[in-house]
Amino acid sequence: MPAVSPLAGEPIKRADADELAGVLKAFADPARLQLLSLIQSAPQGEASASDLIAPLNLSQPTVSHHLRILTEAGLIEREKRGVWTYYRLVPSAIAAIADLLTPPRKRTTKSAR
Amino acid sequence: MPAVSPLAGEPIKRADADELAGVLKAFADPARLQLLSLIQSAPQGEASASDLIAPLNLSQPTVSHHLRILTEAGLIEREKRGVWTYYRLVPSAIAAIADLLTPPRKRTTKSAR
Repeated sequence: MPAVSPLAGEPIKRADADELAGVLKAFADPARLQLLSLIQSAPQGEASASDLIAPLNLSQPTVSHHLRILTEAGLIEREKRGVWTYYRLVPSAIAAIADLLTPPRKRTTKSAR
Repeated sequence: MPAVSPLAGEPIKRADADELAGVLKAFADPARLQLLSLIQSAPQGEASASDLIAPLNLSQPTVSHHLRILTEAGLIEREKRGVWTYYRLVPSAIAAIADLLTPPRKRTTKSAR
């Protein structure tokens, strides 16, 4: 994750923009937003893949595909316990993205219009 | 913009996820992140299209295309003054997205691991 915010001070470099855009692309999909939302609202904040298939009305391979993208982007993490794999959010990664998108409050915008 | 956060409480519905994903897609592009960053860091927080072409090393039609996507997503607004069009961020829209992506602090995660 780039340490540089696109919305605070210096313009960001292309390499940082590429990296941040990659993580944002993981977010920018309706099924993945629903998955994040389902995991977040699950008991204990964790869900197995099978918990996630029925509510979304998607096939198991499609859900697995989206879970893989979210895991690779660092937005969720998985843990194998016995035969089950459980997914939970990585709140720090999600908060970091939210912070990057928070523009600093301008001191005086001097809007004369 | 959906009023429902994907990361606070109830799982979001598909229609809200579609709408939020649309706005996030506007963000999830390196050139558009650079444009947002350039506009944010410009004097007075505003820039004309021609201010934005040289630093990005992109063609004028490409920059116009990206500016149109950002405008349609509500992330920037434009104002015509004389022959020039100026672009500035819509901080409230950007902050709203950042808020939607901020997971509520879990009260007790009871992580026994």
